[in-house]
Amino acid sequence: MSESGRIPQARALLQQCLHARLQVQRGLVIYVCFFKGANKELLPKMVNTLLNVKLSETENGKHVSILDLPGNVLIIPQTTLGGRVKGRNMQYHSNSGKEEGLELYSQFVTLCEKELAATSKCAEAGVVVEHGTYGNRQALQLDTNGPYTHLIEF
Amino acid sequence: MSESGRIPQARALLQQCLHARLQVQRGLVIYVCFFKGANKELLPKMVNTLLNVKLSETENGKHVSILDLPGNVLIIPQTTLGGRVKGRNMQYHSNSGKEEGLELYSQFVTLCEKELAATSKCAEAGVVVEHGTYGNRQALQLDTNGPYTHLIEF
Repeated sequence: MSESGRIPQARALLQQCLHARLQVQRGLVIYVCFFKGANKELLPKMVNTLLNVKLSETENGKHVSILDLPGNVLIIPQTTLGGRVKGRNMQYHSNSGKEEGLELYSQFVTLCEKELAATSKCAEAGVVVEHGTYGNRQALQLDTNGPYTHLIEF
Repeated sequence: MSESGRIPQARALLQQCLHARLQVQRGLVIYVCFFKGANKELLPKMVNTLLNVKLSETENGKHVSILDLPGNVLIIPQTTLGGRVKGRNMQYHSNSGKEEGLELYSQFVTLCEKELAATSKCAEAGVVVEHGTYGNRQALQLDTNGPYTHLIEF
């Protein structure tokens, strides 16, 4: 269900983590996928929404953004999120092409890195953006006190 | 994006796991959420789709259903999957009520257990359905060789 009823340009799935491999602790895991027709103008809006949405839990149980926590960000490309079930199979016909997807993904990561670097609270805490390699299978270990999984479509 | 463009009745997020806490190995993790208006008639269709979709990878790299693998199933209630972002906040207005959600969740789990029990390949292999407790935060450890995350809406 996209935010406005139209066909989405992207999907992002968010999970909370205490610890995830790729050496990210106490942070936000973002699985991201781009659809055909997604364009670069989308990216700043995605970054703004995902890094400012109040889904990170403080020790007091309050929910703040990952920038305010502050916490690490782990970005994992998940083209599988673009799949659509048909019978017993998944089809990925709406996914962006591989080159476009890589370009959008890379720019998305870069914009997230810039946002953290520009946020003094994050710079002082030394929190980082880690990201998986586009196109490769990425082993992942995730510990979470409740994954708190959210889906956002753009 | 629902399968037919209408407002969905449920969302299921699937991930592959090598090992997940709650003692499930080599199986399928299903995060499930029900929306307002979801009714029981939906459940057999959900079970049929989720347990037969070919998203489980064999050692040969072939994709089969979890029933054919065969593998364990870990079902985790994730009402957060029903959220919709508004500004910096998530809203859960479309989620089912707590009682309805619990009822649907419990029946969904039961139907999955029955399906595995009725499948000789699964019974012989001794694979099981494990599930989290509705309404409680559930710590989760997930190891995966690529989470292979898929979203299905019903």
